[in-house]
Amino acid sequence: MSSIAHLTRRYYFSASHRLHNEALGEEENRRVYGKCNNPFGHGHNYALEVTVGGAVDPATGMVVNLADLDRVVGEEILERFDHANLNACRESFASRVPTSENLCQEIFRLLDDRWGREPALGNARLERVRIEETSANAFEYGPRSDN
Amino acid sequence: MSSIAHLTRRYYFSASHRLHNEALGEEENRRVYGKCNNPFGHGHNYALEVTVGGAVDPATGMVVNLADLDRVVGEEILERFDHANLNACRESFASRVPTSENLCQEIFRLLDDRWGREPALGNARLERVRIEETSANAFEYGPRSDN
Amino acid sequence: MSSIAHLTRRYYFSASHRLHNEALGEEENRRVYGKCNNPFGHGHNYALEVTVGGAVDPATGMVVNLADLDRVVGEEILERFDHANLNACRESFASRVPTSENLCQEIFRLLDDRWGREPALGNARLERVRIEETSANAFEYGPRSDN
Amino acid sequence: MSSIAHLTRRYYFSASHRLHNEALGEEENRRVYGKCNNPFGHGHNYALEVTVGGAVDPATGMVVNLADLDRVVGEEILERFDHANLNACRESFASRVPTSENLCQEIFRLLDDRWGREPALGNARLERVRIEETSANAFEYGPRSDN
Amino acid sequence: MSSIAHLTRRYYFSASHRLHNEALGEEENRRVYGKCNNPFGHGHNYALEVTVGGAVDPATGMVVNLADLDRVVGEEILERFDHANLNACRESFASRVPTSENLCQEIFRLLDDRWGREPALGNARLERVRIEETSANAFEYGPRSDN
Amino acid sequence: MSSIAHLTRRYYFSASHRLHNEALGEEENRRVYGKCNNPFGHGHNYALEVTVGGAVDPATGMVVNLADLDRVVGEEILERFDHANLNACRESFASRVPTSENLCQEIFRLLDDRWGREPALGNARLERVRIEETSANAFEYGPRSDN
Repeated sequence: MSSIAHLTRRYYFSASHRLHNEALGEEENRRVYGKCNNPFGHGHNYALEVTVGGAVDPATGMVVNLADLDRVVGEEILERFDHANLNACRESFASRVPTSENLCQEIFRLLDDRWGREPALGNARLERVRIEETSANAFEYGPRSDN
Repeated sequence: MSSIAHLTRRYYFSASHRLHNEALGEEENRRVYGKCNNPFGHGHNYALEVTVGGAVDPATGMVVNLADLDRVVGEEILERFDHANLNACRESFASRVPTSENLCQEIFRLLDDRWGREPALGNARLERVRIEETSANAFEYGPRSDN
Repeated sequence: MSSIAHLTRRYYFSASHRLHNEALGEEENRRVYGKCNNPFGHGHNYALEVTVGGAVDPATGMVVNLADLDRVVGEEILERFDHANLNACRESFASRVPTSENLCQEIFRLLDDRWGREPALGNARLERVRIEETSANAFEYGPRSDN
Repeated sequence: MSSIAHLTRRYYFSASHRLHNEALGEEENRRVYGKCNNPFGHGHNYALEVTVGGAVDPATGMVVNLADLDRVVGEEILERFDHANLNACRESFASRVPTSENLCQEIFRLLDDRWGREPALGNARLERVRIEETSANAFEYGPRSDN
Repeated sequence: MSSIAHLTRRYYFSASHRLHNEALGEEENRRVYGKCNNPFGHGHNYALEVTVGGAVDPATGMVVNLADLDRVVGEEILERFDHANLNACRESFASRVPTSENLCQEIFRLLDDRWGREPALGNARLERVRIEETSANAFEYGPRSDN
Repeated sequence: MSSIAHLTRRYYFSASHRLHNEALGEEENRRVYGKCNNPFGHGHNYALEVTVGGAVDPATGMVVNLADLDRVVGEEILERFDHANLNACRESFASRVPTSENLCQEIFRLLDDRWGREPALGNARLERVRIEETSANAFEYGPRSDN
């Protein structure tokens, strides 16, 4: 058997957004986004799951130390998006609508950028980012999601 | 034994808010509300539970018809607050901060006002409104909550 | 402080039912019960919560031994209603429609009848029966529910 | 990185069924299905998850519009199976036992048939159907489940 | 209507315990506690819910500031019991078996003692402590639980 | 389409453990494991999900009979680890730290060993073992997890 194991860690953040694409007209925006196009925005409690995989370290019995993973996700994602208005996060959503599909890809990109600069994450590989927007809607992005 | 039974129906709505009291200074607002005072607002998926009680009707076996309860809660609460910015709901929050405590009391008041004008709700009594702001925070208001 | 503590134990059973009152006409049955009046019936996974209260026994640190509670609930309720068609449970629902309100009251009655014949339950008091029919609908019956 | 994202949408329906294969004798039916062979049937609240994947549309930020997905799942699946007795759904279960394995494959087949006739679903691909029969049992079917 | 609202905050801690009363013989301990009497102990993820009630402060819209409640519960309960062996918490369980009934009463007592020394909690009243030992077992203690 | 379906069955067990590697010094153990290195140990309610896949048997409509799967998981895993101290399970954890990564791999190994000796499991394949240590941490191991 392979010695690769996978761990998924769950985080929460609350944010607001408005789904609106300025390149589309007002009517088209209302048609595409429905009440999510409401001009004052609305919000969600997002649940974020980050999945990493790698060989289990024989000394520690761990794939990655959760304290290191929490530090990286905290600094890159939670500080940026928790209690934020996503439309106002210009580095991430200046030219893209803050749908959960785009948020998922952006979170993967932010973590993936950080990964190479973070020796504590060792040989663990970032496999998947999953966002639950509500209990009825979940979005996934990453190499493991594409199998 | 009493013939009174109680039913709790669960609804969901997503909304954004900013916790800010203009009567307090900026520093005091930040001290009291922390990151919930963020000027762009943030959001939540609220779960709303409405509890009613009454005698079980021997003909139907019901305390109240859920279709009637859904209609009343839909018209009074979900149409008003779902995908809304609570601070912009001036009838409800012009002079009160849209905390979950105040939201809970306001939802109770709105339903209670409607109750008397709604013969379909029959002898059922509005007992309690409960809001889960996140999976860690719940708020309750109503006569049954005060026991 | 009081020495009374309360414990709630959760059980599951799956059953089918059809909501139909022969004393009402076909049209009225459809109006009252909607798709729950479907002639072939439909089903639910019911979650049942039984709440008991009493003084904590200083020797055991328990209000009631869960093994005893499980035995009583198993024999009186789960053997009767799990994987059953409620309409076919004639002792309970010959003359009443198997709504969750009526099911809740019937479960309370069945447990309450057994209570007096079960010395192992000692001084624990049956306080409340709660049924979740779906994750959106819950029903309660019992003295503690009436406060 | 790939531009493919995946979304999973959750639906609920309640149905009853009886596990019974007329080609097996009565005793064999009881041995194989246990109490699920009860002649009056029993029921479940099924949670259905439908997973689709595709490129994120740069204009809308979406893989597929949830309103379109809801319409398709509503018409093909919920109208057919919600509050139904699965054994009585002859088009689907005339010659197959309505186990959750078979129900899962049938739901995939029904959605997959509709997919080609539904231009609004665009380039999104039906990847997986998952059914939770109870909180302890889940079943999956589809190309993504086979990796 | 009353101006009293109630809020429930949820915390988590993991701990191990062994149910054993030295005043009972070995056989009696095994009979009463079953596998919970295993000499090496076992463990749980406990979910702790603390309910407080009080008038909503018109300036802040809050019953109590969650930051204050979190500080008090953190210092009194989580620092003491998280990742602990409850039998080794001698101040609390030297002479009582660490059942969840006793743990619930002990947590209420510890919070209640602190309450009077904590002006930030203002007029909020400690109403109830609830512990979920597993998803099937919950225990409650406090004045509101006794109604 | 493939005729392969997959089913996931969920089990629960409670156990205690201490994360400590005798080959590392005391300070290093505290640095690596934090409060999980507490000498008295602590505990969790583990949720275990076992996923199997295979062709649906046309006669029974099943991939595998749940009664057989429950028997195998009960005998191999629950009898061994439920209400146990994992560090004291010497056959499994004499030379490995009982982290959830190692527990996951060990459970897969134990089930996989049994699989070949259990004709009732027929053509079903053991695909994945998943453990939720808490609601925030999940671990997976098995061929399906490696896609």
